[in-house]
Amino acid sequence: MGLDMPLREAMESQRAIRRLKADPVDNELLLRCIELALKAPTGSNAQNWEWIVVRDPEVKAKLAKYYRQSWRIYGGLGRRRMRGHDKMLRNIDAVQWQVDHFEEIPVLVIPCLRGPRLTFFPMGASSHFGSIYPAIQNFLLACRAEGLGAALTTLPLWSTTQARRALGLPFGVQPCAVIPVGWPKGRYGPTSRKPVEKVVHYDRWGTKTPPSA
Amino acid sequence: MGLDMPLREAMESQRAIRRLKADPVDNELLLRCIELALKAPTGSNAQNWEWIVVRDPEVKAKLAKYYRQSWRIYGGLGRRRMRGHDKMLRNIDAVQWQVDHFEEIPVLVIPCLRGPRLTFFPMGASSHFGSIYPAIQNFLLACRAEGLGAALTTLPLWSTTQARRALGLPFGVQPCAVIPVGWPKGRYGPTSRKPVEKVVHYDRWGTKTPPSA
Repeated sequence: MGLDMPLREAMESQRAIRRLKADPVDNELLLRCIELALKAPTGSNAQNWEWIVVRDPEVKAKLAKYYRQSWRIYGGLGRRRMRGHDKMLRNIDAVQWQVDHFEEIPVLVIPCLRGPRLTFFPMGASSHFGSIYPAIQNFLLACRAEGLGAALTTLPLWSTTQARRALGLPFGVQPCAVIPVGWPKGRYGPTSRKPVEKVVHYDRWGTKTPPSA
Repeated sequence: MGLDMPLREAMESQRAIRRLKADPVDNELLLRCIELALKAPTGSNAQNWEWIVVRDPEVKAKLAKYYRQSWRIYGGLGRRRMRGHDKMLRNIDAVQWQVDHFEEIPVLVIPCLRGPRLTFFPMGASSHFGSIYPAIQNFLLACRAEGLGAALTTLPLWSTTQARRALGLPFGVQPCAVIPVGWPKGRYGPTSRKPVEKVVHYDRWGTKTPPSA
């Protein structure tokens, strides 16, 4: 079925897959997923993205080091905050696996944005990242449809200077996220979310019934 | 076919649809699209989103006013910068239509994020908006599959203070984008994008051939 999976099924069974096999991921397959990512919208249709595909052990080792640095703090805090929340602790265990096995993950995809961020306009940051995360979501859905495991993290990029140096990025190019990709050890499957009624408001904050009802 | 449209087809034929009919959009249908939006990932699975669905003419009129204020500057600059680029000028015309007919658009969907943005962490802004734009992209794809027209803009939110007041949002809730939704006057269809080879680099910036090749 692959990329012809029904949209609803792909969305309903997408989840972060962090435990990945070390088996290689075919480059053509990966490019097909990135190609669909590029169909997503960008502000003013600028398509100001660059995608770094990392398989080189040396680059992976550097990013693994930065990931471990930030995870030591962030993961420790998370474990303390989530004490008693079994489901969240299982998530933290999955991230821990990813951190511990980072060098064995076959490929890292790092979407980047070119160009300045309009910091004087309050919506500048939203518009800026609004030009990469729709594409990232397309990529994650395409991976899901192809049966590839993937998950989203920003922790290996905590020092943009170090990350940029590891990837040889010029000054005007900002790495936005790291997506480790590989064949899953686990399985895709349904996720649980807050019911839609909990998060939808009508016309103004706090109105929880549609005006016509 | 609706939401069971093949993933690839939905992505390949998604485009910003700005010219919309005034006909109403059924609330159940809209909720189904938001429900699929909520399947997208959020940082630490926080699901810290709120979705405001606006049909009230008074709230629409306020947002229309703010949109016109920022479009007067942004659209004017755009028209000058894009002189001679027919395709981009057609996009600008479509936005102009949207600005001029904003009050007639049946429904505005405004995804918001709760909670603080970690501004001290360089990746804070990326992680923050990375918890709403994947959901926004799911929503846009679901609209496309259902045949609803939709497009993404941040311009009506240029003054977060005014926008927050119009929507009655509490202080800790940030509006991230405005998505006008309705039945399209135009049609969905293929988009053109830079070829994937142009934007993919292997291992480090500038390496344009995969290492095994």
